[in-house]
Amino acid sequence: MSKFLSDNAAPVHPKVWEAMRAADEADNPYDGDALSSELDARVTDLFGRDCAAMWVATGTAANCLALATMCQPHGGVVCHEEAHIEVDEGGAPGFYLHGAKLMLCSGEGAKLTPDGITALIDPIRDDVHQVQPHAIAITQASEYGRTYSADELEALSDFAKSRGLGLHMDGARFANAAAFLGGSAKGAAGPVDSLAFGFIKNGAMSAEAVVLFDPQQADLVKYRRKRAGHLQCKGRYLAAQILAMLDDDLWLANARHANAAAQDIASGCAERLMHPVEANELFVRLSAAEREALRAQGFEFYDWGADAARFVTAWNTRAEDASALGKVIASL
Amino acid sequence: MSKFLSDNAAPVHPKVWEAMRAADEADNPYDGDALSSELDARVTDLFGRDCAAMWVATGTAANCLALATMCQPHGGVVCHEEAHIEVDEGGAPGFYLHGAKLMLCSGEGAKLTPDGITALIDPIRDDVHQVQPHAIAITQASEYGRTYSADELEALSDFAKSRGLGLHMDGARFANAAAFLGGSAKGAAGPVDSLAFGFIKNGAMSAEAVVLFDPQQADLVKYRRKRAGHLQCKGRYLAAQILAMLDDDLWLANARHANAAAQDIASGCAERLMHPVEANELFVRLSAAEREALRAQGFEFYDWGADAARFVTAWNTRAEDASALGKVIASL
Amino acid sequence: MSKFLSDNAAPVHPKVWEAMRAADEADNPYDGDALSSELDARVTDLFGRDCAAMWVATGTAANCLALATMCQPHGGVVCHEEAHIEVDEGGAPGFYLHGAKLMLCSGEGAKLTPDGITALIDPIRDDVHQVQPHAIAITQASEYGRTYSADELEALSDFAKSRGLGLHMDGARFANAAAFLGGSAKGAAGPVDSLAFGFIKNGAMSAEAVVLFDPQQADLVKYRRKRAGHLQCKGRYLAAQILAMLDDDLWLANARHANAAAQDIASGCAERLMHPVEANELFVRLSAAEREALRAQGFEFYDWGADAARFVTAWNTRAEDASALGKVIASL
Amino acid sequence: MSKFLSDNAAPVHPKVWEAMRAADEADNPYDGDALSSELDARVTDLFGRDCAAMWVATGTAANCLALATMCQPHGGVVCHEEAHIEVDEGGAPGFYLHGAKLMLCSGEGAKLTPDGITALIDPIRDDVHQVQPHAIAITQASEYGRTYSADELEALSDFAKSRGLGLHMDGARFANAAAFLGGSAKGAAGPVDSLAFGFIKNGAMSAEAVVLFDPQQADLVKYRRKRAGHLQCKGRYLAAQILAMLDDDLWLANARHANAAAQDIASGCAERLMHPVEANELFVRLSAAEREALRAQGFEFYDWGADAARFVTAWNTRAEDASALGKVIASL
Repeated sequence: MSKFLSDNAAPVHPKVWEAMRAADEADNPYDGDALSSELDARVTDLFGRDCAAMWVATGTAANCLALATMCQPHGGVVCHEEAHIEVDEGGAPGFYLHGAKLMLCSGEGAKLTPDGITALIDPIRDDVHQVQPHAIAITQASEYGRTYSADELEALSDFAKSRGLGLHMDGARFANAAAFLGGSAKGAAGPVDSLAFGFIKNGAMSAEAVVLFDPQQADLVKYRRKRAGHLQCKGRYLAAQILAMLDDDLWLANARHANAAAQDIASGCAERLMHPVEANELFVRLSAAEREALRAQGFEFYDWGADAARFVTAWNTRAEDASALGKVIASL
Repeated sequence: MSKFLSDNAAPVHPKVWEAMRAADEADNPYDGDALSSELDARVTDLFGRDCAAMWVATGTAANCLALATMCQPHGGVVCHEEAHIEVDEGGAPGFYLHGAKLMLCSGEGAKLTPDGITALIDPIRDDVHQVQPHAIAITQASEYGRTYSADELEALSDFAKSRGLGLHMDGARFANAAAFLGGSAKGAAGPVDSLAFGFIKNGAMSAEAVVLFDPQQADLVKYRRKRAGHLQCKGRYLAAQILAMLDDDLWLANARHANAAAQDIASGCAERLMHPVEANELFVRLSAAEREALRAQGFEFYDWGADAARFVTAWNTRAEDASALGKVIASL
Repeated sequence: MSKFLSDNAAPVHPKVWEAMRAADEADNPYDGDALSSELDARVTDLFGRDCAAMWVATGTAANCLALATMCQPHGGVVCHEEAHIEVDEGGAPGFYLHGAKLMLCSGEGAKLTPDGITALIDPIRDDVHQVQPHAIAITQASEYGRTYSADELEALSDFAKSRGLGLHMDGARFANAAAFLGGSAKGAAGPVDSLAFGFIKNGAMSAEAVVLFDPQQADLVKYRRKRAGHLQCKGRYLAAQILAMLDDDLWLANARHANAAAQDIASGCAERLMHPVEANELFVRLSAAEREALRAQGFEFYDWGADAARFVTAWNTRAEDASALGKVIASL
Repeated sequence: MSKFLSDNAAPVHPKVWEAMRAADEADNPYDGDALSSELDARVTDLFGRDCAAMWVATGTAANCLALATMCQPHGGVVCHEEAHIEVDEGGAPGFYLHGAKLMLCSGEGAKLTPDGITALIDPIRDDVHQVQPHAIAITQASEYGRTYSADELEALSDFAKSRGLGLHMDGARFANAAAFLGGSAKGAAGPVDSLAFGFIKNGAMSAEAVVLFDPQQADLVKYRRKRAGHLQCKGRYLAAQILAMLDDDLWLANARHANAAAQDIASGCAERLMHPVEANELFVRLSAAEREALRAQGFEFYDWGADAARFVTAWNTRAEDASALGKVIASL
């Protein structure tokens, strides 16, 4: 049986386990411990610009806490109509932003562009009867496994600034995007204002980082993290996970592994791909019969509508499984 | 150095580590895994009445999600004026209950009584100008380490029912209370409607259980858990923690150990105690000079106002440390 | 100058003024006065089924308070993508429903159908990751001045019940719809669960009625009305407005007058109409030059996109103005 | 029958009626009309410093909208434990401030002092576990009819600034306070940041003004007023009320009348007064028998606990009624 269902249930990486065990020694509770205290510096170092970094247990919480620094309850957040925050977070933004509105934008590959956003928000009358946009949220890599290049990020940031909007990046698969884009965290984040830096899909157990490139906002996130019941008292175990992922660029190594597996599969089904493969997800046109045939051979994956399937690779995907899958699809 | 600061930063129990590692094998994400699916039955078994049990990473989230089943946004929750939900949760109930009000009641030992609550709520006019109580929240063991007996719980439940109020129990140190009260989970919970069953202070890493004795309400908690960003995708690691704590009553064994250490200390300072010791916390009258003397001998603890100290024992408190502390205080 | 901008700024009807002045005599504050106390019975009488009726100063508040009886904070309300609650209420539903989501449905004439709603909600996975619909909101007459027939309302209600959804009607122009549909309040409301019964656009100053056909829910609306700062202390002046509108069916007479004026205009521009005229709004294809010509002759109205205009008649529209407008358009 | 129940149900002043009728002529909807547009300048003129002024239908909404400019959802508002916003607004601050906390302070005459506030907030630990104060709300005149002098307001403002807190004034009976303090609006407001300027209890029907002395914040209030369903489409009728009250200082004349009546009563019961009479409310020690005797003679009023009564005068209290009441009490 080889699983390509999702990366979100993959095991915890051995080095992460090791780091967590090493954190067992009692220390200050909450985020007052030595490991949590390292985060700001370590993440600042990685991105090459000042930032505050705080652990939190889920990407949903990370996205929402970051968005709360840039969107008032009476404002709106522009996001793709298929964005995770709109489709798959159970209304969390409505909760954390106290009723703010998600403003849904279309765009190829679940990516936003200045033109697309302009088309959405320009018709909004500048009066109190209509919710005004306060922020933009993009996903890197996108919900279809597409990445934003440095130029695209620059353009989005310029646009956001020109409109007085914050710019947040949902980075549930940021590592995979960064790996695809050349390996620079800084480049893959571009000039966004905040990032939900994902580790869980990439080998951690329960730690993502809320990264604020304006560290002045850290207090807001810290008070709201506590208020949302997300300030764990044994926070050192979360910090340990993140630090382990950053050590020796484990985050990149894991993502490169997953991406390579994805490319391996892709090479067997280039003409069936619905989207270019730029991270660790593949959306592949496959009939019901073909999917059945694949499952009969032990491959697990999700259907994607009536005529396609989604395959996701992870840090622990075995190269031979990916290779086999590519070959089997090619042979269909 | 021997630490009596708090139980909230104690290491993870070896059996919990073991269970988490054993959960490494990929399974369904979120709470669709085999371990999470066991929770309802295991907790039902423990309490001897039907319940739904859901993991969540903090006591704050557990309390708030449970309270949301019994208090509308325009209502109020009666709690002790020194209750954790009022004093130490950063306003989380206001967030989770969408602006509902905490209605502060006095009571010895941070415990509530029907009489105390009556005195608080009877003067509330039954009109829309005043927030009406919808629920009562008690803490077992209380913020001063006091327990509610079976009779007291019965009386509170009868009172709550007679007034149409829900009754929730914050059980951050439920295990310690249960251990003190004879070891029955059922007895220590009494007829409450919901319980935030704490494991983290007692040897787990990041898992508490929201226990609803009306399983019909489980859906509300599940939707709101997701909405609050508390549905972890690798939930099996949280379920594993809870199950490990329930196996062979590890939860009780750990609590008994901590309680015994507390009694050991108490035996050295009976006349200095501000509250009877019924769990694993001691509030001890000690002058500044005495506290300094203790610290000079390597004991760590928090001041409690100007003339007292708080000592907390944990599952990993060494018997000799507790014993030594008791003796040193006795000798002051 | 003759104004067809909107009915929302029309003067107050003389009989409404008279009734307000007659309410000057001091009485109990809030809604404890004699006039407010009449509302339930008077509205029950009008609709021929039990209901609770409460005044409130705006349609926005009326809609939101009614929706709060049927949609939890974690749920969603299906409405038309051009519904007033989505487009023109400044995010009020997000505020009153504590972050619940509006789920946008398409449909001709800004009307919803069971088929349209089915297409929207059937793809929603029945899991906690996706916001589930709790209620449906329709507008009678719709944002394009279209009405729902008795059969259509029956079908929507059956559908809502079969899915366990509440059904609310935004009746900002309910009177105009009722007038068009034959004059029966009961028929125009059909079997909806709640109605925001509009009077302000139809001759009142500042009073709409929240009508709940399940009077058990009245308490929720009353507590939330106070909590939203909508319980005016001199509520008798609002009750007086509503009662004056109900007396001798002034509400119907005013609406019939406005509708007749609309028909008069329509008769001059049948082939230019974007929507059938079933209430007091006309959406008319007119080029920029034509609109300029109209304005030059003293007609005031809003542009509707680049190639059309919206005309709204009111209780005080002069018949000769409407007739003149129809003729001028016909002559273009 | 002479009524001293409350000023909140008094009739509308003839000049206010006149102004409302004069506003009948159609104008722009919402607050785009000529009258609403005058408010900023007129109120700026009155207070002698720049401000933005917006109508709203209730004091509850006015208070809450103003507080939203100075308190974040995770913060707190210090107010007196008997403040109207705590005791009598049905939890509205929790709703409008999205769960922020009211932090209850004691103080004689329902007044706050820097010392009292210091005693309340200094023990709050400066960490995320405890809700931090963001603002202070005082009531002028207070819930016991007491006023803040210019010096007291200066001291409170200095204190607020030194702690980084906003300072809001609930002015439901601001006119009565101003009349008592010498007749200067500026003096009675002192250097507060915002004021809910009450007119309804003083002769208007349904209009209070939210006054922001930092006009930059006006947008926030305007968006949230709409979002709360408080932007009435025929707003000119509310603006007309306020302007009529400001014309020729009707607001002061009405308040002086009410205050004089209160003093007249007070002169008959000086030794029975629970609080000095500085506005239009009297709290008078009267036994049950004495209250019965008063009622037997046609006086209406509320009991105030078991051994006292509250009398409130209004703009329309007849001098002879007040005088009679004073004499009857004197004779008891």
